[in-house]
Amino acid sequence: MTDRVFNFSPGPAVLPLSVLQQVRQDMIALPGVGCSILEISHRGAAFLDILARAKADLVELLRIPDNYRILFLQGGSRLQFSMVPINLLRGASQPADYIVTGSWGSKAVLEAKHEGEVRAVWDGAGSNYDRVPSSHESFVNQEAPYLHFTSNETIQGVQFRREPAAGQVPLVCDASSDFLSRPIPVERYGLIYACAQKNAGPSGVTIVVIREDLLDRSSHQLPGYLSYRKHVQEDSLYNTPPTFGVYVVGLVARWLLDETGGLGRMDEINQQKAKQLYDVLDNSEGFYHGHAQLACRSRMNVTFRLPSDELEQMFLQQAHERKLHNLKGHRSVGGIRASIYNAMPFEGVTALRDFMQEFRDTH
Amino acid sequence: MTDRVFNFSPGPAVLPLSVLQQVRQDMIALPGVGCSILEISHRGAAFLDILARAKADLVELLRIPDNYRILFLQGGSRLQFSMVPINLLRGASQPADYIVTGSWGSKAVLEAKHEGEVRAVWDGAGSNYDRVPSSHESFVNQEAPYLHFTSNETIQGVQFRREPAAGQVPLVCDASSDFLSRPIPVERYGLIYACAQKNAGPSGVTIVVIREDLLDRSSHQLPGYLSYRKHVQEDSLYNTPPTFGVYVVGLVARWLLDETGGLGRMDEINQQKAKQLYDVLDNSEGFYHGHAQLACRSRMNVTFRLPSDELEQMFLQQAHERKLHNLKGHRSVGGIRASIYNAMPFEGVTALRDFMQEFRDTH
Repeated sequence: MTDRVFNFSPGPAVLPLSVLQQVRQDMIALPGVGCSILEISHRGAAFLDILARAKADLVELLRIPDNYRILFLQGGSRLQFSMVPINLLRGASQPADYIVTGSWGSKAVLEAKHEGEVRAVWDGAGSNYDRVPSSHESFVNQEAPYLHFTSNETIQGVQFRREPAAGQVPLVCDASSDFLSRPIPVERYGLIYACAQKNAGPSGVTIVVIREDLLDRSSHQLPGYLSYRKHVQEDSLYNTPPTFGVYVVGLVARWLLDETGGLGRMDEINQQKAKQLYDVLDNSEGFYHGHAQLACRSRMNVTFRLPSDELEQMFLQQAHERKLHNLKGHRSVGGIRASIYNAMPFEGVTALRDFMQEFRDTH
Repeated sequence: MTDRVFNFSPGPAVLPLSVLQQVRQDMIALPGVGCSILEISHRGAAFLDILARAKADLVELLRIPDNYRILFLQGGSRLQFSMVPINLLRGASQPADYIVTGSWGSKAVLEAKHEGEVRAVWDGAGSNYDRVPSSHESFVNQEAPYLHFTSNETIQGVQFRREPAAGQVPLVCDASSDFLSRPIPVERYGLIYACAQKNAGPSGVTIVVIREDLLDRSSHQLPGYLSYRKHVQEDSLYNTPPTFGVYVVGLVARWLLDETGGLGRMDEINQQKAKQLYDVLDNSEGFYHGHAQLACRSRMNVTFRLPSDELEQMFLQQAHERKLHNLKGHRSVGGIRASIYNAMPFEGVTALRDFMQEFRDTH
């Protein structure tokens, strides 16, 4: 254990140690099965049980109502950028509405435009994506097929505190980087998608939670793998699902229920962790310059700059020497980014906080 | 180790024990990295090295020429059933040609028909998919955008011994269930795709080997994730790849090179393993009835029936008691199927052979 570092990677990201230990234990032979978790058929009893438990645990964690279905797909959010409009926008008489609060929302719009008319009803590019719209900024077209938003922008580090008002329009959310980090009112959503590699598991599995009535919108002519309807009909077994990914997501969900106490408690912990770092920013007299406006600060990705590129390089290097790894900001924006997802332990955040204070005092 | 069974699952399937041991070893912290293999960024040095080595080892194993590119994608063969025609058929002036030798080829045709004109130039449905066309049966339209075939049909257990003649038409192969089981002349192919969960790794990663000149055919208007061109431009990092899957494929490739001696040797072993079982069929005086015609028998999936459903049930049950697991045929065809991929050890095949002889002698 002693050779593990504190891993602030934006994703694939840190996982709970107890989850990794369980994976290690099941790697040669699952108890009672006699094969590795990597070797079992997706149609065998062992995997069907893993799948059912993962779904049940997600239902419990997120209080997902009965009229929603859970899918485990492949292709990441990138494929969802296309699958959402392919299923829900094609053939619609009105454009789809998108709120764009950062790099990922912006990419989602580009893909949607291949499939139909799109209206960017709010776009934060003008202020370099340093905020999300406030709750009294209203814009949705009540005839739109859906309203899409990105609950947390990983690169810019801005996050919605609550869902934008959508009225009767189905709300579609790219929740990739804050999925399972806090409770959400699922009944307000039409569709939620999240790649797993931030809070929920390894890369290669994407969770989709979809309200049943939206399934009727999928054309029967779609490429099979791109149809939500087909995946729901086959309960994620339309093709061979990423069995190992589903298994790890299940272990993470169990960890949240058994060891953390659910999403309400996880949210409290995440707020406390984020506060530790943002307090350093706010008390640094401008040495650390946070990217996001205060009300929109992400509790998952803390993004900030130092007074110069040289200091940022030095910061990264000295942090690395203290086993605080992967703090470099995304190549498109630079600076520093501390990703502190669910599984980042409090000690990791405290160690980073102490280092940040010390580094500032020294320079 | 002692609690491992012989796993004849058609996929996800048995993996080499030494690969599983390596995975277990890297599960808490990769040496020198301090994070689990599940936790490392796809853009970090550790993963880029894993990716580069996996590609180099595949090049070495398959002698892939310089003008081919290797991709690690998600979505399995099912998504490839659509991606192939979306990239190579859309906009073509002639139909794509498909040779249909079993369930998977048949599904590939259905998906291709969503994207353009398709001609099934040979279809074995009439004889219940018990053979592949012989090498003197010629049919390809020299103006076709490509000729698609399935090198091994997992469900029926029929396999091509050599590539169908395609002339100048790009040959596209679903090699999912015999990829890396034998050498193939890659230079004769335009595109090869294979989900990993048979011979090459866990489910959730799909290997695509594509000849460079075909990339020009992809429209710039495709959904981003569905464009081979975009994936090649970004070297499989267009989005977050299934990092763990790529890592395991790399370990399997290394195992083939270091422990098996390459694909020529692997092919010899696979032929010997298959012969053990087919000999029992041929010497059973009709007790075991093989599905495939002799010249087309799969060396990966040995499919056969017993004189009655009752005997098949009894066979499966008694086999299971001897730790010979997952021998049930696919629900669509019934009977028995022994999948004996690369990682199925000789002892597993011998144990099954002995059991088959004994079961026949008793009944």
